[in-house]
Amino acid sequence: MTTKILKPARLDYHDQNFIQQLEYLLAWENVSDAKVYDTVKEIITAVRRRGDWALLNYTRRFDRVSASSMNELIISKQQLHNALESISDEQRHALETAAARIRTYHERQVQESWSFKERNGTRLGQKVQPMDRVGLYVPGGQATYPSSVLMNAIPARVAGVEEIIMVVPTPDGVINDMVLAAAALAGVHKVFTIGGAQAIAALAYGTVTVPRVDKIVGPGNSYVATAKREVFGQVGIDMIAGPSEILVVCDGLTDPDWIAMDLFSQAEHDEDAQAILVSDNLEFLHEVDYCMNHLVQGLERSEIIKASINNRGALIHVPNLKAACDVVNRIAPEHLELSVANPEALLPDIRHAGAIFMGRHTAEALGDYCAGPNHVLPTSGTSRFSSPLGVYDFQKRSSLIHFSDKGASEMGKVASVLARGESLTAHARSAEFRIKK
Amino acid sequence: MTTKILKPARLDYHDQNFIQQLEYLLAWENVSDAKVYDTVKEIITAVRRRGDWALLNYTRRFDRVSASSMNELIISKQQLHNALESISDEQRHALETAAARIRTYHERQVQESWSFKERNGTRLGQKVQPMDRVGLYVPGGQATYPSSVLMNAIPARVAGVEEIIMVVPTPDGVINDMVLAAAALAGVHKVFTIGGAQAIAALAYGTVTVPRVDKIVGPGNSYVATAKREVFGQVGIDMIAGPSEILVVCDGLTDPDWIAMDLFSQAEHDEDAQAILVSDNLEFLHEVDYCMNHLVQGLERSEIIKASINNRGALIHVPNLKAACDVVNRIAPEHLELSVANPEALLPDIRHAGAIFMGRHTAEALGDYCAGPNHVLPTSGTSRFSSPLGVYDFQKRSSLIHFSDKGASEMGKVASVLARGESLTAHARSAEFRIKK
Repeated sequence: MTTKILKPARLDYHDQNFIQQLEYLLAWENVSDAKVYDTVKEIITAVRRRGDWALLNYTRRFDRVSASSMNELIISKQQLHNALESISDEQRHALETAAARIRTYHERQVQESWSFKERNGTRLGQKVQPMDRVGLYVPGGQATYPSSVLMNAIPARVAGVEEIIMVVPTPDGVINDMVLAAAALAGVHKVFTIGGAQAIAALAYGTVTVPRVDKIVGPGNSYVATAKREVFGQVGIDMIAGPSEILVVCDGLTDPDWIAMDLFSQAEHDEDAQAILVSDNLEFLHEVDYCMNHLVQGLERSEIIKASINNRGALIHVPNLKAACDVVNRIAPEHLELSVANPEALLPDIRHAGAIFMGRHTAEALGDYCAGPNHVLPTSGTSRFSSPLGVYDFQKRSSLIHFSDKGASEMGKVASVLARGESLTAHARSAEFRIKK
Repeated sequence: MTTKILKPARLDYHDQNFIQQLEYLLAWENVSDAKVYDTVKEIITAVRRRGDWALLNYTRRFDRVSASSMNELIISKQQLHNALESISDEQRHALETAAARIRTYHERQVQESWSFKERNGTRLGQKVQPMDRVGLYVPGGQATYPSSVLMNAIPARVAGVEEIIMVVPTPDGVINDMVLAAAALAGVHKVFTIGGAQAIAALAYGTVTVPRVDKIVGPGNSYVATAKREVFGQVGIDMIAGPSEILVVCDGLTDPDWIAMDLFSQAEHDEDAQAILVSDNLEFLHEVDYCMNHLVQGLERSEIIKASINNRGALIHVPNLKAACDVVNRIAPEHLELSVANPEALLPDIRHAGAIFMGRHTAEALGDYCAGPNHVLPTSGTSRFSSPLGVYDFQKRSSLIHFSDKGASEMGKVASVLARGESLTAHARSAEFRIKK
């Protein structure tokens, strides 16, 4: 056999330093480069001041396109439709199947307004409404993912957002038909071929051509991520994503080739991606190691996989599946595969994970495309406090408070005591005006 | 009559420049001071490196307390209980009434896990769980608000958060009994008398004494806000709040004294607070102006009110209530009072508002203390895309995907086409392994 090219770290739950080793393995920080930050600041200021003019100039410079007016950076509904007609039947069928399943799943997430009445006639509640207008960033160039268009746009549509504005840069004029076809299927309303920090600034503040949105979602490079962080507050944003991760828990009875390929399906994303296998079967960990070294050879993206597995991959031996759940909760992974006989039995012990793939047949890759749930998931341990992208990210709530005369009089007394306790006299007097004498 | 001391801006919906004037009036940016930013960075780094030692030193320096160990910066359960016993019966009753109403309202926001089964046996769903541990920042010094403790801690408790850690600085050793009493009532688990950026850093990264939390909520000064923005990603945070605002829509038939005092109840918060009245009755706008000038004289915080009303306050004349709703939606206010005969009739036209106070008797101040809904609301137009603090802010979701053999085989084909379209071969092969031959 040739020399092993993949050398994932080996950890053992019983090691005295296990926690430290695990923390070292997981360490990751989204550091923004100071240079990137300065450039982004400059771009945002220019787009705010000079609008379309700045947007057009940056797009010409960064994307090497020859547009002479913003009109040339708009993709018409007809072009989207043409793209949908131009792809193969097989591709169209796959996109349509995925879109339908994503829609069906997300329809379960729609939240409704509610209210209730108290005995004295006071009514309290919450009004739930969609946002008016949302911006969707789609990366151009090498990494153009039509699946990402579906995953971001469909929940917004299901929420009832009236207008979805998509931006996608077209470096050197290159456009991806699958991306446009996905936009047509997902019900995107307008597409501009702009990208980078300038596209984020245009969406956040609006220009004559690009309408201002209420929230910006979608992945992007470090300029895009930095710009999103910068405009947060002016508009809503989704999470700033870190590298992709998968954690597989296996009892040793799944085909090791399957598990090896599942690990690769995240490792191939990028060199910083993290793929970890946890098992109570030491022999199985050896087998998967062997299979990984065997299977990697045929893959196009073997160099990325190699970097990812050798820098951040790991095989972790645990005494039992209970301990595996403990490891899961410490990692709070983006993707968790429970490749065991009875995944339901482990579920109550799982506190933190973006998406849980249950049973030997549920490959994580199915979730990336067509299972139905969203593939935009919390990374880098953020599933401790955040959720998959969903319809709830495109709805917002307003509290409803309607006091009856009697209710206002009763509660006015309570508010008065508390307001005076906080030395807020105008608060107190405003409440006291409604107390019946 | 003496000279008018309050001079709110006067705007008219029919003015050609109305929109520009309105935008000028609303303009507000949360600019972080570069000096504050550098100090915060330094403090966070120090607390991450030196933990309790740094925390203790900063607390001694900034809060002028003489503690010689972290143990002296812990408030015991007994102290919380004692504080609750020490306040007056009237205050205790008011706090308990408020707490009970806040709890009842928020219990309606609890979200449950769900799942559904497809015909081929595939099960999809979402698991909803509380976060493990949450940090609550409570400002010390001048602005200590017991109501804020209730509003932040109770939703976390209702969500089922196991541990709520409160931090409150005690400058010069001063402790507010009402704040501690509120913490006792709200079910806070641990209290540390620390504050500023050092408290935020301790909660985000953990020290030997202060446990690391999953999310930090609660208001604070610019150091606290900057620190929260900085640790976002390591932990979750609530919104960074801008100055408080109220927008009152009135048909001219509410007592003008009531409306004047309602405007003051926000204006008294701080000099940057914004109070705006919109009415289709020009005569009424004059009356409220008169009442404001009359009422302001008796108030403790008249200087703050004067600054707020003269810099950022406004009286806006609109042709009708339909136009008033248009103004509401452009402003997207934190607090909206619909002081009209039939507020229900306007509700369908209201797109953006943090909380809606309906009818002449629903003073906004009731919502600050004891109506039930949360008083932590989106400011500065952010109600376009965000919601009141709620139980949903302390719950998080994990997608559940459990494919049957048959489902995995069918969907494997779809995923394979899409993955190959994106040149992600390992994704494709991982899915293809599950296709039945």
